[in-house]
Amino acid sequence: MEGFNFSTDVLVRFAETDAQGIAHHASFVVWLEVARVAYLTEHAGGYRGIRTQGIEALTTEVQVRYHRAAHFDEQLTVWTRCVGIRGARFRYEYAIERDSDLVADGHTSHAIVDAATRLPTRVPAWFVDVIARAEA
Amino acid sequence: MEGFNFSTDVLVRFAETDAQGIAHHASFVVWLEVARVAYLTEHAGGYRGIRTQGIEALTTEVQVRYHRAAHFDEQLTVWTRCVGIRGARFRYEYAIERDSDLVADGHTSHAIVDAATRLPTRVPAWFVDVIARAEA
Amino acid sequence: MEGFNFSTDVLVRFAETDAQGIAHHASFVVWLEVARVAYLTEHAGGYRGIRTQGIEALTTEVQVRYHRAAHFDEQLTVWTRCVGIRGARFRYEYAIERDSDLVADGHTSHAIVDAATRLPTRVPAWFVDVIARAEA
Amino acid sequence: MEGFNFSTDVLVRFAETDAQGIAHHASFVVWLEVARVAYLTEHAGGYRGIRTQGIEALTTEVQVRYHRAAHFDEQLTVWTRCVGIRGARFRYEYAIERDSDLVADGHTSHAIVDAATRLPTRVPAWFVDVIARAEA
Repeated sequence: MEGFNFSTDVLVRFAETDAQGIAHHASFVVWLEVARVAYLTEHAGGYRGIRTQGIEALTTEVQVRYHRAAHFDEQLTVWTRCVGIRGARFRYEYAIERDSDLVADGHTSHAIVDAATRLPTRVPAWFVDVIARAEA
Repeated sequence: MEGFNFSTDVLVRFAETDAQGIAHHASFVVWLEVARVAYLTEHAGGYRGIRTQGIEALTTEVQVRYHRAAHFDEQLTVWTRCVGIRGARFRYEYAIERDSDLVADGHTSHAIVDAATRLPTRVPAWFVDVIARAEA
Repeated sequence: MEGFNFSTDVLVRFAETDAQGIAHHASFVVWLEVARVAYLTEHAGGYRGIRTQGIEALTTEVQVRYHRAAHFDEQLTVWTRCVGIRGARFRYEYAIERDSDLVADGHTSHAIVDAATRLPTRVPAWFVDVIARAEA
Repeated sequence: MEGFNFSTDVLVRFAETDAQGIAHHASFVVWLEVARVAYLTEHAGGYRGIRTQGIEALTTEVQVRYHRAAHFDEQLTVWTRCVGIRGARFRYEYAIERDSDLVADGHTSHAIVDAATRLPTRVPAWFVDVIARAEA
């Protein structure tokens, strides 16, 4: 998708559907996290790579806009990009497609904290470099 | 809480926590739904009341901003109000408190569809009345 | 219910339903945990009380038998008893009712481990006493 | 794994972990379902294939025994076999491995119902054939 360099696929699980017969809207929030983890595995040695550095990423905001329903056993493509690193903060943006239809889009905002003190700490230089290369 | 007439409580379940030792951010999206259901039970005969009318409410947007971590077995109060009914659309706003601390806030947007045709349909007059009384 | 001294209620959440229009079978496993937590809050100062003692309870087995479907917004009563404490191990048994119909029953098995070493450790005497009184 | 012809992999999601720092025990129940769906996709044209035939499979029992903890971002292999078809009923058995360690095992029991009447109905001959070939 235009403007995104990375995507990962999810297959809608039956447990993720609801009595309206569609994927429950909270499932999308989990898929965004699955996509972030896949992005970090691809580019930054994984979430565990981050935690090894003594830092943790908190989620400070989630926004999802739902354009079409998703259904059990459908394969969805979650396009993901990391943008707007500033101080302790950064942001991911997402577009979820099925075939070429936009199913949902949204963003999550994050803050880096020191794993021990829980205080905000600058996004480390190596992470800034990793993202700069990933999003080039 | 100032500006809200309705609240419901949730107790953070162990299954809702994650390996950061806090309530997972997707759990909040479920709690907003629990609060909407409680609101409708209080004011409009419940979700089932709505479905009996041949209409369904879809969720078209979710936004949550996380201000403080929530933890296992903490009791949270979810303040809820319904605002901005226009055509087929309406919106809920939320503030989640623990004691008197703001843990998270956010909103969800919804559209009414005809349960049979899945086409958007005006929010029914009785629902507009119910909300007007609830939010008076 | 005959043979049970303790129960707690859960209200089926919409997020807990699936595309068969019923509560998803994995939701029941979460409700059993909700019931254990409520049981411990009633009788043993809560889960946190346990963790304060430097021990943790692991789940080593879950079994649920589903007799009737549960649906969105139904109130279920989860009857719970703790039985069979032996060494580091104990077991909970459950019966889930709606009105007077048996919806599901089952059990979970647990082992106490030292929170620091993760090694099995005898169920502490105070916990044995608490359960003996609760189940008298 | 000895005695199993089919497996599928799952990657532990962060949302599936809990405050003990391990995969929550209810997550395993969802993974068993993911494995059944993958099995049916491989062998029987998928769950949707089944629903097209006017029947549905209900889950009547779940049992999981937990032998080792699973952790965030670990890849698990879910070995799956379908056994014991009799009348309207059949059963799946599972073994979950990480590398060559047994993490959990268990089974689920199911009953076929007519999608319209919800009454039990014999497992159809084509499904019996499909399973016989899959498990040969």
